This record gives sequence, structure tokens and C-alpha cells, in this order.
Amino acid sequence: MIRFDSDYLEGAHPDLLKKILETNYEQTPGYGEDIYCDNARALIREKCGREDIDVHFLVGGTQANLTLIGAALRPHQGVISADTGHINVHETGAIEAGGHKILSVHSEDGKIRVRSIKELYDEHYNDPSREHSVQPGMVYISDTTELGTIYTRNELREISDYCKEKGMYLFLDGARLGYALKAEDNDVSLNDLTNFCDAFYIGGTKVGALFGEAMVISHPQLKKDFRYIMKQKGGLLAKGRLIGLQFTALFEDDLYFKIAGRANSIALEIRKACEEKGLNMLSDSKTNQQFPIIPDELLKSLSKHYSFSVWRKLPGGKTAVRFCISWATSGESVRELIRDIKS
Amino acid sequence: MIRFDSDYLEGAHPDLLKKILETNYEQTPGYGEDIYCDNARALIREKCGREDIDVHFLVGGTQANLTLIGAALRPHQGVISADTGHINVHETGAIEAGGHKILSVHSEDGKIRVRSIKELYDEHYNDPSREHSVQPGMVYISDTTELGTIYTRNELREISDYCKEKGMYLFLDGARLGYALKAEDNDVSLNDLTNFCDAFYIGGTKVGALFGEAMVISHPQLKKDFRYIMKQKGGLLAKGRLIGLQFTALFEDDLYFKIAGRANSIALEIRKACEEKGLNMLSDSKTNQQFPIIPDELLKSLSKHYSFSVWRKLPGGKTAVRFCISWATSGESVRELIRDIKS
Amino acid sequence: MIRFDSDYLEGAHPDLLKKILETNYEQTPGYGEDIYCDNARALIREKCGREDIDVHFLVGGTQANLTLIGAALRPHQGVISADTGHINVHETGAIEAGGHKILSVHSEDGKIRVRSIKELYDEHYNDPSREHSVQPGMVYISDTTELGTIYTRNELREISDYCKEKGMYLFLDGARLGYALKAEDNDVSLNDLTNFCDAFYIGGTKVGALFGEAMVISHPQLKKDFRYIMKQKGGLLAKGRLIGLQFTALFEDDLYFKIAGRANSIALEIRKACEEKGLNMLSDSKTNQQFPIIPDELLKSLSKHYSFSVWRKLPGGKTAVRFCISWATSGESVRELIRDIKS
Amino acid sequence: MIRFDSDYLEGAHPDLLKKILETNYEQTPGYGEDIYCDNARALIREKCGREDIDVHFLVGGTQANLTLIGAALRPHQGVISADTGHINVHETGAIEAGGHKILSVHSEDGKIRVRSIKELYDEHYNDPSREHSVQPGMVYISDTTELGTIYTRNELREISDYCKEKGMYLFLDGARLGYALKAEDNDVSLNDLTNFCDAFYIGGTKVGALFGEAMVISHPQLKKDFRYIMKQKGGLLAKGRLIGLQFTALFEDDLYFKIAGRANSIALEIRKACEEKGLNMLSDSKTNQQFPIIPDELLKSLSKHYSFSVWRKLPGGKTAVRFCISWATSGESVRELIRDIKS
Repeated sequence: MIRFDSDYLEGAHPDLLKKILETNYEQTPGYGEDIYCDNARALIREKCGREDIDVHFLVGGTQANLTLIGAALRPHQGVISADTGHINVHETGAIEAGGHKILSVHSEDGKIRVRSIKELYDEHYNDPSREHSVQPGMVYISDTTELGTIYTRNELREISDYCKEKGMYLFLDGARLGYALKAEDNDVSLNDLTNFCDAFYIGGTKVGALFGEAMVISHPQLKKDFRYIMKQKGGLLAKGRLIGLQFTALFEDDLYFKIAGRANSIALEIRKACEEKGLNMLSDSKTNQQFPIIPDELLKSLSKHYSFSVWRKLPGGKTAVRFCISWATSGESVRELIRDIKS
Repeated sequence: MIRFDSDYLEGAHPDLLKKILETNYEQTPGYGEDIYCDNARALIREKCGREDIDVHFLVGGTQANLTLIGAALRPHQGVISADTGHINVHETGAIEAGGHKILSVHSEDGKIRVRSIKELYDEHYNDPSREHSVQPGMVYISDTTELGTIYTRNELREISDYCKEKGMYLFLDGARLGYALKAEDNDVSLNDLTNFCDAFYIGGTKVGALFGEAMVISHPQLKKDFRYIMKQKGGLLAKGRLIGLQFTALFEDDLYFKIAGRANSIALEIRKACEEKGLNMLSDSKTNQQFPIIPDELLKSLSKHYSFSVWRKLPGGKTAVRFCISWATSGESVRELIRDIKS
Repeated sequence: MIRFDSDYLEGAHPDLLKKILETNYEQTPGYGEDIYCDNARALIREKCGREDIDVHFLVGGTQANLTLIGAALRPHQGVISADTGHINVHETGAIEAGGHKILSVHSEDGKIRVRSIKELYDEHYNDPSREHSVQPGMVYISDTTELGTIYTRNELREISDYCKEKGMYLFLDGARLGYALKAEDNDVSLNDLTNFCDAFYIGGTKVGALFGEAMVISHPQLKKDFRYIMKQKGGLLAKGRLIGLQFTALFEDDLYFKIAGRANSIALEIRKACEEKGLNMLSDSKTNQQFPIIPDELLKSLSKHYSFSVWRKLPGGKTAVRFCISWATSGESVRELIRDIKS
Repeated sequence: MIRFDSDYLEGAHPDLLKKILETNYEQTPGYGEDIYCDNARALIREKCGREDIDVHFLVGGTQANLTLIGAALRPHQGVISADTGHINVHETGAIEAGGHKILSVHSEDGKIRVRSIKELYDEHYNDPSREHSVQPGMVYISDTTELGTIYTRNELREISDYCKEKGMYLFLDGARLGYALKAEDNDVSLNDLTNFCDAFYIGGTKVGALFGEAMVISHPQLKKDFRYIMKQKGGLLAKGRLIGLQFTALFEDDLYFKIAGRANSIALEIRKACEEKGLNMLSDSKTNQQFPIIPDELLKSLSKHYSFSVWRKLPGGKTAVRFCISWATSGESVRELIRDIKS
């Protein structure tokens, strides 16, 4: 059985493990206050092109989302998200458990547009009884989205401008940020994200790390006391250097982007094979997740040798499925899959 | 500078790393549903002598505590803890952030006795307006305690009997459980804990792992839907096998107990040296944490070459400090320290 | 300016005030433990036809909803509601502030059908990764709905049967229950509600009381310690008898139903006038709220002498508005309004 | 049986009821946006001597406390309170249910001193690992305290100065504020409270109202969006004018202070009788609550004709009890009680 279920099926890129091994006997302070975390912070600041950002390391994505959002919002505020957003569907209500409603807007492709945000914002503020409903306090977006799509620089700037004008935070979930930034039609840089977003995180778990997400905070108000809230939510790793070491390895030599670029290329080969076979794609993804719509016979036959996600049942005996490529996916596995799709 | 600040300054015991390396390219399902987690569960069930327990793996102690306590209590219930308890002083209000008051009882040695629990319980239920105060719903204890002391089998049984009689859960925080179970005067077994407690966790982070705690749940009501709550609190690690692998290594060949036993022996040498020097100890610890009360000159001179925790300032120019031994503490470091204490 | 904005613009029906005045100097215990609350409980038990129910008095609807839902759900559970449900749109995220996601299902008429519940339930339980999403733990419905519509006995029984089968609570928000039970096509009784729902409340604030809602709990698990949670949420009124006295007055001589019946009749006159004028109605309401769709000129002219709610802007220069009738609406006011609608 | 259990056993002072009756048929907007609330706000602003304060009306004290504290603190912050404070012992963990730890300091007389606050503050900020513990964000005090004692102007100013210097909010619970301000040795004015505190509330429930507390907010940051949070917590009364009317009656002609002054006088007569009888008092209260320490025989004999609170069992067959005087306590009741104490 070859698995394309997700991009976190294997361990870590060997360069990361190497650093963990080499430093195993060193004694360092806990909770992210060691030199390896500081190194990684310096590297990330450099890549982001700004010295004034705070960088914190968290173990996983749900933790990253619930901590940042909980730190940012007042009790009566909610967060605007695509209905497909990870916080809205795959985190068991972590945001609500922290007290905040998710104000979802419908999205076909996983992205949200400034007009949807504006609509929701205006509806709230045009209501004379607005204190009876949740105040939008933040916009949450993902790059890549859950459907592998990406934002353009213009789209991000528009959302950012609107949020700044209206006093809402903009937070970007970058669990798969590497894949987004290395997509062939991407025009967004880490520096753009730093300037457009009040906070965003650079995902490690799904881009070659054992675990770990690097939260980048540029808004001064969000920086204040963030470590307290990380600790409270259980997100301050005792042996914090483990994440610092991994992000050092990922950013020292652009390994992060190499991993992502390679996975994107492989994914596009799968996409090409599907399209040549005449299959439609659920989403216009140029990144490491591909969503072909396949007839049920093909689903059945592929399921014998491959595991992958069933995304959505569609009418007419068809199913949208997801193939997900990781840092470790071998060329051979993909060639086999392509051959079996084509035949 | 040689560090005795804590037992999580270094990485992991090499046997654990070895397993992580060996399996790095394997593809396994995420979130603790892989064979390595299953292996570790089987080993833990065997050591606990009961097949009917649930075992879950969490990244850290705060996460473990807030998840279990949040899963167990209804909104109006609180948890009884020693005032020195980790949840009461060192988790940034994680339990309160989950909605529950900590009902603290004073303790000199970090342990709580059944009479303190009874006193608090009776005060609540003898109050005709009891619904105006928080209902005690759980007792939280730690073994070892924050002060390195341990519970006897009789003490645990008494607390357990009382809790069962009164319908309160008993939960034991075992962040340093190995050290407790290997203390020279310990008469408690994993099987006892399984039978006495409704849930407890076996700490990995402070006993040789990179990270990871194994939550053992024996009460049927606490088992129900626990994984949902882990996910909600951000405690379900994507590459969950990392913890399964480490606990396999720790329990396959009793490595967990060997690590703990060795650390305890070293700690007792430090204790002996202190006592021979005529120093008093803050706590009657036979485990890997030692709390000598030292005069300020000694504090000053030791601080030049060693780092350790300042626990409490005392009158008369004295300070209680903590030396903490880990799996990786070298014999040489300790011999140096002992020499410097004695001279 | 004559107001039709809502059914809580005036004080209380004089019979209720009379009881408050008569007993003003009596000394009674606080927090609902007085004889007047007990009287009201006895009357409500009698009307509900069951002796085994618990009855609690809360000040308002948001309080009633957040207390009951918070008492019922475990942390990972959410509540299914119509997207138009009061808890979803007009309580400033009170349910989420208590930690629970609202699982909304779309509804045109404010009611939800068993098939929508089933769809959502199945989607959750058919997902092998279901612990990554919020578990449906309760169904929340309103009678009347926000749009003045009501449930039939069959609809309620179907929902109730499904909930019982699947182990979900059924909770009915009866802020305007009187109007529902006195609607001309209603076939539901208080006894039905008691048997079909695990809990429901009989609204006072919107049916002639100064304030106050009577929560009826039939499910044994929801009864346990409910007063603790009322107190914690700030819902235990010190001079609790004030609500007991009002519900005594409302239920002693069926005043509750007389008030509601009269308001419904008046509302139907407005409806008739609108229909005769050729106006469409947004909702098929037979109760005290009427939602005509009026052209903007009429909106403008009526706004000079009457206040009412603008419900929804519609295309083509039309607006759905709401006229709301209370216990105190005078016949004369309504005759004027009808005359002005017609002309 | 004559009751001295509390100051909320009877209804409301007749002047308040009169206003409710007179306006019963008027139509006003809901949720505190009516002219009667505005009137009451104007009166309170005048008495407080400041035009720039916000005044909000809440139904009860727990509601007032949990709403204000929840609105003020960030997730990692706690509130400093006397261990006897109402929020710490008699609100079923309402503050913790909102996510915040109460940082309690021991108090014999119910008051807290600036040195206790400073001690706790310094302990937190001197800890290099301070992000592992709850940050003090607010000081909560009560006037009168739970023990009937009051603060002097100097004490309040000191606490206020310290809080301002350290960036902590100061919030005063004035459930019994009238009694404090009319105590014979009081030197504090409403204007002082407005200037010293960031927020405080003027209690109605325990000083002659059916219910209702007036929250006075002077700190700009606490003013922002406060009504949203009131609504979310269930604290926005639909027929909000009921509280506005009552506070108008209470403040129009200084009725609030007359009620309180009379109750204090009566209470002092009880105190005098006790002292003449040679009884000690648990607390140095000059206000409407008196806490004599009585031998068990007297407790037994008084219990036949009077109800009152058993406050604390003391050694030597003695009990501290509480007699509480309200706006409605009759001179005759008190004369009887005094006679029976003396004999």
C-alpha cells in the first residue's frame, strides 16, 4: 500500500534529524529560550526582511491557531473564515472552546475575497442592535487553502488594506505555506506576508519537520505577553530547542523551499496525468495537494494499491479525491500511481 | 557552566532517538493511530497489569493536565490540589482557562492527605447554600510531588477510597513518575496506580524522552470521546508515532525505570554530601530533585560554575535551592558539584 | 409614534404587578427557594401533566439558553440550530463563549426538519476522522421560531424520536411559547413538550411578564446540579420570588394563554389587511409576529407614525418588515395601523 | 419567625415600585436604551461628579462581576481578591468559568492592603519564568466587605495609585455600597470612587431595589463595547427600563442613602446590645451587617424566633453569626431581638 493520504505520514527530512542528534547531549534552557531557537528566529527575521517581528515556535497547527486567535480577540469578537477553513471544520471546535464564534463565509475554492469580508462587516455595523451579534475582530485565511489554491499578492493586499482600515486583525494559517510560496504562479513573498498580516505561521509539520510551526507576529499588540498564552494553552514545548533546530535546518539553506518545490512538481505530474486522462479537477491547485474527480470504478481499483483521501462524493458515480505529496514521496511511487491512473 | 536546573535540559536517551531514525521513512497514519503507538499501548497495558485501560499520548504535561481535567469536570466543578501543585502555580491558569476553579489545600511537603480533602468536601456539602460555591469534582495529586516527595501505597489507597465513596475523580500527575516508582522507599506499582486512580499519566519529557506523556485512563466515563477533547485542546500530535516510538523504547526493556533509578542514586549522593556538610533539606526527597538549604555565600560561590533553581528565600541569609538530575547527568558533573559543596 | 418593534416594549400585565405589590413586605428566602416559586412550580407541573419535572426560573432568554446548553454538553459537543436561531444570531456568541460551536443548518422558515439533523449527524459519524470535528450533542429548536412559525406535533415527535435514538438532547426555546400554543393550527400541548423535549422553557418576558423564563427539565441527567450552573452564569435572581409570583399569576387562571391568544388574533387582523392589500408575507406566521413584504414608499409612509423592525432588504425596492403584538397592544393602535396599511 | 438572614428578603422600597407602576403601559425601547435609564445615568453622573463615565445597568451582582472582569482581562491575566471576596467564595466559580484565576490574598477583616497586592505583584514579576504563572491584571475589592468593614479614603487612594503605577485595573464591588458610604466613620465619596477605581458598581438588590446594579466605568478601555459583553453574558435585561426606573427613584432624592443610613443605625443598636451583653464581635462593622460571637445556648434560644446566618463555628462552644438589616426591617423586630439578646 502506497500512501498519498497526507503530507505528514513520514518522519522528518534527514537534515533536521541530524541537527537533533548532534546536539542531543547539550544542555540548554527550556521553553524556546535557547540559542537554537534564537538562531532560527534570526533566520526567519532575515527571510521576512524585518527585524521587528516576534517569532514563536509551537508544536502543531491547531495549537498555533487557537493560541493566536485566543490572544487576539476580546470576548465578544469572532473570526471571519472560509467555511472550508481548517479552524471551522477540522479542529473540533478549538476556537469556540476558547470562547469565539467563527463567522464563516462560503467559498468554492477555499479562498475568501474582500467583498465577502466587507459584506459581513457591513451587515454587522449597519445593524443598530449590533451588540446582540458577534463583532468581527479578525480575518483568518490559509495559504495554501484546504483546496491547495493560493492567494495572489493583490488579493492579499486588498484584504490587508481592508482589515487595517476597519481595525480587524489579519491572520494567515501557513500550515502549507512552503507549497504556496513555491507554486508556479505565486507572486507573494515572506516579506509581503509580514507586511500584510498581523500574524502568520510558517508550517513545519506538513513541510518536512517532525513537528513545529513558526508563528511570526508583526502587530505590536499581539506581541504583548504571547508566551504567557502559549504556556496557558499547553503550547510551550519544554525542550523547545527541538523546533528551533528544525527551523534552522529548514531555513539555513532554503531547504524549506526546496522540499516544497519538489513536492509541487511531483503533484503537477499527477495533475497532468489526470487531465490527460480527461479527469476534471475539483480545485485549481498548483501545489502539493491534487483533487481529481474520478469515476467510482477508478476509485475502486486505485484503492487496492494506494491510500488517499475521499474528499467529497459527487453525483453521477464520481468522487473528488485528494492525493497529497510530501518531502518523502518517492519518484517511483508517483510513477506507479501515474501509470495506474492512465491505464 | 554545568546545569542542574531541570531534568529537561538535554535531548532524549539515545535508544529513543534510534527508533525515530530507523522508522523515519515509513508511512504511518497520523494522530496516534499507528502501530508504534499501539505497541507502546500494549507494553503499558502489560506493565499496568490491566487490559481494559485506554492509553493516549500527549506532547506535554500542561496539555495532559488541562485535557484530562477539562474532559472530566462539569462546568460547576473544581479540582482539589495542593497549593504547590503544578496546575496551581506553573501552568499560567490553564485549568481556569478551561473554566474550572482549583480548590487548593495547603501542603508543606507537596502531598495532600485524605483529611484535607475530607475537610474541604464536608465544608462544601454541609453548606445549605452549597450551589453558591464550586463543587469539588476531582482530586489532583502528583507523584513525585513538586518537592520530590512520594506517596505511600496506603496514602494513595485512602485517597482513592475516599474519592470513590464520594464520587470524585482521582487524577495523578506523573510528570516524574519514574523517579517516584524507583525511590528507595516506594511501595507503589503501576498496577496500584491503575486501580487507585481514575486516570494518571506516565511522564516522558522529564524521564528521558524528547517529549511525550502517556495518559492511562481506567474510569469508563473518562474514556468516552477523549480523543475529541485532545484534538480540541491542540494535544493530538500529527506525527503521533513519535511518542509511540519513544514509549516503546522506554518500556520495552524497563529503560524508563533504569533511567529513573540512576538519577535517584545520583541525587541521593548530592543529598548525602549536603547532609554531611550540615545543611538542612527543605524536603524529604529521595528522588531526582534535591532541595538543600544553603547559606548565601555558598549560593554565590556555587552559582559561578553551576546553574540550579532558587526555590525559596528563607530568613537568616539562607536559600532553599533545587538540584535536578536527568537521564543525561554525567557522573563527573556530580562529583564536581559534590566536591564544591563539601569544600 | 406607536411601536410594534417587539413584544417587550411595555411593563407587565397588571395581574402580575398586583402579586408583586401585595407581597412586597413579606420576608422570603432568596434564589428561588420561596413558597411563591414553589407555587408556580406546582402550577407548571400540573399544566405539563408530569410530577417528575424540575422547574427553574431565570431572568431572560439568553441566560436560559446559555445555562441549559452549557449544563448539557461536554466540551467537544456542539448544538444543532437553524441558521436563523436566536442563539446563532442574536446572543453575541453566548453559546460559543461557553465553549460550544453552533452547528447551523439552513432554514427558510425558521424550523428544522429531522432530515437536516440526520444529514449533519450522518456526515459526522460517517467520517473516520470524526474526532477532528465537533460532535453534535443537542438539537435546539424554537417554538414559535424567529419567523413566527410553529412546529406540528408530528414534526416534534419525529425530531424527538431521532434525538432519543441517537443520544442527543432536544431543547426547545419557548421565548414565545404562549403564542405558539395558542396558534389556530397548533396541535402541540405542554404535556407533549414535556415528553418530547429533554428541556424547554416557557417564556415570560415576551408574554406579559416584567421578565422571567420558566425552565422545565425532564431529562434526569440535566436536572443534576442545575442550580449550581445557574448561579455560576449569574442566572440565580436574589429576590427569586419575583419570577415565581409572576408565573403564578400567568398560570393560575390561564392568563398566559389568554394574553397569547389575544395577541395572535390581533396579529392575524394585520396579516389579513396586508393580504387584502396584495402584499406578500415573508413567513407563514399565524402568531403574534407578522412579516409583510412592503414596497419602499409604504415603508417610508408607515415609518412616520409607527416603529417596527426592518427584517430584510429584498430586491425590487421591497422590504420585509416585522410587526410584533404584545399583551398591551391596544385595539385602537392596530386599527390605525390597518387603516394606514390599507390606504 | 423574624428573619435577619440577609438584606434581600423583602421586595423593593415602595417609591421604586411606584415608578414601575406609573410607567407600566408606556412603550420604550429595550435593553437599557430608554429615557428612564438615561435619567438614572444622568443622576448617577451628577452624584459621581463626572460627565465622562459610562453607566450600565445589570440585574445582579454575580452578573456584574463576571461581566466586568471578563471584559477587562486578557486570557492569561487573573484578578487579585481577598480570600473572603464574594467572587472567590460565593459565585460558584463564575470568574474561573470565564477563564480567569482568582489570585487570593488572605484577609482577616475582608479588606486588602496595598502591601499584599505589592507582595503578590512583586513575586510574579521577580520570577524569571513568570509566563508560567497567571499575571495579575486587576485588583477586586468590596465596600462594604463581606464582613461589613469599609475602606478609608487613604486606603483606597493607596491601592488606586499602586494599580495605576503598575497598569492593573482597580474594580470595586459595591453590592452594599450605600451602607459603606453612610457608615459613621466613612470618608469616601462617590466622586472618590469614580476617580480611584477604573470601574465600580452601585448595588441596588441589597439596598432597596427589586434587583439591579449600576456599573460605573471611568477607564476608557473598559468602556469600549461593554454592551456586547453584557449581552453575551446574559446581562442585558430586555425591559431594561425597570432598572433605570429604580435607580431614578433611589437617586432622585437621596433615597439610596436614607435607606442605607437607617439600616446602619439599626444595626449599630444591635451591636451596642451585644457589646453591653459582653459579646465580642467577629468584625469591626459599623454597617448593616453585624457579626456577634455568641455562646451556643444563646444561638439555640435565638434560633427559635429569629433566622440569621451561621457565619463560622469557633472553638469553646461559640459561633459567629450574622444579623443583616434591610430597608424594610421594622423597628419592632429589632427591639424584640435586642430584648432577647439582652435577656
